[in-house]
Amino acid sequence: MLEELKYQVYEANMKLPEYGLVTFTWGNVSGIDKEREYFVIKPSGVDYDKLSPEDMVVMDLEGNKVEGKWNPSSDTATHIELYKASRDIGGIVHTHSTWATSWAQSGRSIPCYGTTHADYMYGEIPCVRCLTREEIEDEYERNTGRLIVEYFKGKDYLAMPAVLCKDHGPFTWGKDAKEAVHNAVVLEEVAKMAANCELINRKVQPAPQELLDKHYFRKHGENAYYGQKRS
Amino acid sequence: MLEELKYQVYEANMKLPEYGLVTFTWGNVSGIDKEREYFVIKPSGVDYDKLSPEDMVVMDLEGNKVEGKWNPSSDTATHIELYKASRDIGGIVHTHSTWATSWAQSGRSIPCYGTTHADYMYGEIPCVRCLTREEIEDEYERNTGRLIVEYFKGKDYLAMPAVLCKDHGPFTWGKDAKEAVHNAVVLEEVAKMAANCELINRKVQPAPQELLDKHYFRKHGENAYYGQKRS
Amino acid sequence: MLEELKYQVYEANMKLPEYGLVTFTWGNVSGIDKEREYFVIKPSGVDYDKLSPEDMVVMDLEGNKVEGKWNPSSDTATHIELYKASRDIGGIVHTHSTWATSWAQSGRSIPCYGTTHADYMYGEIPCVRCLTREEIEDEYERNTGRLIVEYFKGKDYLAMPAVLCKDHGPFTWGKDAKEAVHNAVVLEEVAKMAANCELINRKVQPAPQELLDKHYFRKHGENAYYGQKRS
Amino acid sequence: MLEELKYQVYEANMKLPEYGLVTFTWGNVSGIDKEREYFVIKPSGVDYDKLSPEDMVVMDLEGNKVEGKWNPSSDTATHIELYKASRDIGGIVHTHSTWATSWAQSGRSIPCYGTTHADYMYGEIPCVRCLTREEIEDEYERNTGRLIVEYFKGKDYLAMPAVLCKDHGPFTWGKDAKEAVHNAVVLEEVAKMAANCELINRKVQPAPQELLDKHYFRKHGENAYYGQKRS
Repeated sequence: MLEELKYQVYEANMKLPEYGLVTFTWGNVSGIDKEREYFVIKPSGVDYDKLSPEDMVVMDLEGNKVEGKWNPSSDTATHIELYKASRDIGGIVHTHSTWATSWAQSGRSIPCYGTTHADYMYGEIPCVRCLTREEIEDEYERNTGRLIVEYFKGKDYLAMPAVLCKDHGPFTWGKDAKEAVHNAVVLEEVAKMAANCELINRKVQPAPQELLDKHYFRKHGENAYYGQKRS
Repeated sequence: MLEELKYQVYEANMKLPEYGLVTFTWGNVSGIDKEREYFVIKPSGVDYDKLSPEDMVVMDLEGNKVEGKWNPSSDTATHIELYKASRDIGGIVHTHSTWATSWAQSGRSIPCYGTTHADYMYGEIPCVRCLTREEIEDEYERNTGRLIVEYFKGKDYLAMPAVLCKDHGPFTWGKDAKEAVHNAVVLEEVAKMAANCELINRKVQPAPQELLDKHYFRKHGENAYYGQKRS
Repeated sequence: MLEELKYQVYEANMKLPEYGLVTFTWGNVSGIDKEREYFVIKPSGVDYDKLSPEDMVVMDLEGNKVEGKWNPSSDTATHIELYKASRDIGGIVHTHSTWATSWAQSGRSIPCYGTTHADYMYGEIPCVRCLTREEIEDEYERNTGRLIVEYFKGKDYLAMPAVLCKDHGPFTWGKDAKEAVHNAVVLEEVAKMAANCELINRKVQPAPQELLDKHYFRKHGENAYYGQKRS
Repeated sequence: MLEELKYQVYEANMKLPEYGLVTFTWGNVSGIDKEREYFVIKPSGVDYDKLSPEDMVVMDLEGNKVEGKWNPSSDTATHIELYKASRDIGGIVHTHSTWATSWAQSGRSIPCYGTTHADYMYGEIPCVRCLTREEIEDEYERNTGRLIVEYFKGKDYLAMPAVLCKDHGPFTWGKDAKEAVHNAVVLEEVAKMAANCELINRKVQPAPQELLDKHYFRKHGENAYYGQKRS
């Protein structure tokens, strides 16, 4: 079942080592089908160089395994909370990529210092608080998802397709698994440049709002003119 | 038309990922023909690994597309302002390369800390101000070009073939597209070493003028003696 | 003799350059046999690209060479002290990997700033003191081992499979040579992210104990649920 | 003439891009023959990927070209001063490698923070002053060599096979061209780790003298026991 989605999710997972975003098995990608009944996710702890499309695990949104020989990623419950919270999210990525994780560990949101950031993410990339002892001890992964969803209540997931979980690492998403991986790459590059930028000028201020608006809307929304869509 | 120039500009574009200066499609190279009637530029948002010489777009200096199936780079208007400002400029590069962009985001010009810098760029690499709200909202890319041209009024473009645009990133140029890419590589390396250098010694001072003169004129002008040109 | 172990130790050694953990011959891996009578270690100063399984040196725990045409690694005496101290240790790695060595040189233990660290190492990664003049001048490598063993007295080697030796570099270990190399890779990544993290937020605090417990026990012990072991 | 030496110097030059020590043509290696009459050096400004053994230039110690179709490296006069100063030097390397150059630009000598450094270089790696205006304007490259030689008067070139020239970059040497390249690689790694180390602990102190002695003499001199030489 869902052979095409499995293949897409497999391919998206394989992009993580290709872009240098994962060490060992420290990452996972999922994608949801159009009816939003089932989603497909990487199996837990399986090496990328041994992965094949058939290893992908099919799950429902109640957390039941529908098909697959492996256990799903240990972060599956986080993915479920995000899929349930927004129909805009078609794919989700979790990594421990170096610079995004360094920001997450530092407990700081990433200010928007320039157009590389503004082209994809509108405003500062939020770092949500660490979970409480109770939230950690019971349903840890699900509570991670709930905390993200709580932060995004009333916000546009596609205008800010990334979040940092304090003391842990980043999640990104997009309209499908491929776009979620694209955003994970952007996040890592933006995180690295923001740290460099503060190193070069400790008093640096975020870019002005009008520049953020310009770059974001150059690529998003009905007046977008970047790329080939309108030609 | 302009098949040779298209091929040169294509090859120069392909050097950007080879030298690690671009992620995804975050860069573009153009080159102008000898009569300076038409220039050739990368299409907007097309992946480097799918690019071919025939994808290059031919434009005139009024911003009209002369030939090509794709939209030109969204930064085309910036390129035009530069070509119109100086006949010395035969090729132009824009990237979001990591360290040059980090300096641009920080809003600081890059001091000349040594001979690696002085061999190619005479003096500090300027960071021009962020555009005003009005300049951003209307003709953003063209105003970016105008701001650069305003800064370089009365200056020698080939003695300083690079500029940083605050909150955005670098542009470099040269006598042709290939040399513009060469300067983009130099800029990235110089930007990285300048940041490292300040990290190692927070009170570091720029190199003395006589050293800058020596290295720059060892490679440029009629008394140059680096390389094989005079043998 | 011990052909299978030699091959395992050879393969583990070859992972060091593959993961970018060694320059030239600055690293060595050993593994001990099940009876814990003999262990196999890389020869001293032999290039990785010329290494073969037959080059591995078989040693006993008194430091006598049992088989092999080469001298064993100059750090052999350190490996012996560790093997003698704990039957949990089946393989040992020493490297001069960039970030772990930078922390070792700085004389600081690596605080646990997040779950990447907590997934493998329980608490801060200790940096043991520099040896005294007497300890250095006589039996230097053996005293390095003794100092590590002294620190770990009463502690669980597998809960903290890494140590930094001040002014020198890291040692890691595991249930076999392969796992010891795995931990060397984790250590390098964790060391890099901890330095980044302090750069981004100079006042960063270690992750809370409950998060460390959660991640460590998600992967270790009888209630572990990461990966495929329980499926 | 000197076909074997040309080949060795060619091979040593090709190691510079392989180890990531040069961008474009920013480096050169030379080696001297046993009679110390002639030395062989890379031609100036020739791309590494077009270099062949026959391109090497044969020079005498008065700076006359003895054989070769190209101009020798523009740094030839610096190499000559070093060869004339010490018969211990059989090969010389100049690069603009990132971290060594960053230290050179910062004007600081590299303190010895650990055993990676101590294994190859005895004590802090000196940064010599910038040349005066007069020294720069006339015989710049030769004066660079003279300044290094002045610093090393009465010192052992092989105990400290590296120097940083302020605002410029490093030179390294060794008993032949291959060893000089080896030392250039060591220098770059040591320079990177020293900067990291100061970042992690701003109050870090150099390693104690007894540790430096131990590691240096473990590899050098008649009591050396690292590697296979004595087996």
